[in-house]
Amino acid sequence: MHLKLVIQYDGTDFSGSQLQAADKGRTVQGELEQALARLAGSPIRIDLAGRTDTGVHAWGQVASVDFPARTRLDQPGVIVKALNGILPNDLTVISAEQVDKGFHARFSARSRAYRYLIWNAPYARPLLRRYSLHVSRNLDLEAMREALSKLLGTHDFASFAGHGLGVPGSGESDKPSTVRAVSVAKLITLDLAANYWAWQAEQAIQGQEGFLLAIDLVANAFLPNMIRNIVGTLLEVGSGKRTVEEFGNVLESKDRRLAGPTVRPHGLCLLWVEY
Amino acid sequence: MHLKLVIQYDGTDFSGSQLQAADKGRTVQGELEQALARLAGSPIRIDLAGRTDTGVHAWGQVASVDFPARTRLDQPGVIVKALNGILPNDLTVISAEQVDKGFHARFSARSRAYRYLIWNAPYARPLLRRYSLHVSRNLDLEAMREALSKLLGTHDFASFAGHGLGVPGSGESDKPSTVRAVSVAKLITLDLAANYWAWQAEQAIQGQEGFLLAIDLVANAFLPNMIRNIVGTLLEVGSGKRTVEEFGNVLESKDRRLAGPTVRPHGLCLLWVEY
Repeated sequence: MHLKLVIQYDGTDFSGSQLQAADKGRTVQGELEQALARLAGSPIRIDLAGRTDTGVHAWGQVASVDFPARTRLDQPGVIVKALNGILPNDLTVISAEQVDKGFHARFSARSRAYRYLIWNAPYARPLLRRYSLHVSRNLDLEAMREALSKLLGTHDFASFAGHGLGVPGSGESDKPSTVRAVSVAKLITLDLAANYWAWQAEQAIQGQEGFLLAIDLVANAFLPNMIRNIVGTLLEVGSGKRTVEEFGNVLESKDRRLAGPTVRPHGLCLLWVEY
Repeated sequence: MHLKLVIQYDGTDFSGSQLQAADKGRTVQGELEQALARLAGSPIRIDLAGRTDTGVHAWGQVASVDFPARTRLDQPGVIVKALNGILPNDLTVISAEQVDKGFHARFSARSRAYRYLIWNAPYARPLLRRYSLHVSRNLDLEAMREALSKLLGTHDFASFAGHGLGVPGSGESDKPSTVRAVSVAKLITLDLAANYWAWQAEQAIQGQEGFLLAIDLVANAFLPNMIRNIVGTLLEVGSGKRTVEEFGNVLESKDRRLAGPTVRPHGLCLLWVEY
């Protein structure tokens, strides 16, 4: 049975999504394949829609898998239940459906949506720290929004590409393309009013101002570290170290050395994948 | 200088708020007193507004402290900055103000607001698991709301009281009062639309329905384990094990043996304290 699984994970304790040598730590692919193999009674390979780095989270990562249907494990819902019974609690299958044989989590994907969270206030919030970057300096949100708009459309994003573009050990000499098509690039201020705990508490705390910012990016695909490099450069725009024009020049230069630093992974989350 | 500090912590790795023997693990009071003493150069005692158990979080816990003003550490803002520089990252002072000598974090407090979070859906969400309880069975929210309304007003909450009411080792024979005045007792469905990651991702996941529920309770003060015992009993109402009337009878009985189980602490958060 060919299945599309939507999976969610807290990336904190994962060495990324892709299978690695056992001594490099646990991975999303490794844990999921192990659980599937236990149910199937034979080795199983999966494909993931997006490659996420160590520490990056996913609300709706997608995996495709050929699962050998067995007695009592012949329905997507039943398989999910069994899987979640043995998966660790930082990795859960949140939905499953049977799909055409031709469906491939990675190659069939039309776009990926990511969100990077920033807590912008003088002091950190321990209850937000696992999933957002704390930035204490004042940020010019309008400048950041202008800079983001320059990313819209199809561009060569070589300036924001990290290492690891090629297939390791493949010996291929052709440089893979660094052209990507970005359809959403926006910064929004999340309304704490509707949030888990914050609003009334923050109102009760005199003189405190804080904003939970989300940088949302949707593209057909992303280069390694692309979002974290974009956010690092964007924060330099927000804090006045670079102008919006300079941000545009970085993109056009196709020179990684001109971009800003790579921000930490824990603020990043793969939201969902469209097919 | 007499200070009111608003502090936030992720309770996951704390053995509660109150100072304990060193071998019982780190506590909020212990860490804060240690950091203050380092700045002051002498031992410091603090008072906390609310006693939170192992694993319980706080968005806006309040501490009062007499801090011996010193050169360069003579302004609340400066002290907070220095404190946050040495506190562990799961405990942060989020505001400070100078207050009258008579201010006492615990005794001056008029009310405490707590929130218990529940993720109600067939499958868990790893990204919500640290701060909410996962309940997979369907819940009758209307019945739960009706039951909650019975808590409003001044009642003897002995049925929902845990251990630890008296002062250990004090030998006092007078039973402390279990009467408390509840001013807010409601259940709300949090709007995922405004939340960190969830909404668009959940929309993209076919056939999934989930609700993030918050049980909000405000009272002049709470008994040990009171909220977790109320929520445990309330969940029995929500799942049809008990009627709303039976819930009312538990309250009236003043008999702890009639209440439901104590739910896990990690879903509970002390939101703020009013003075």
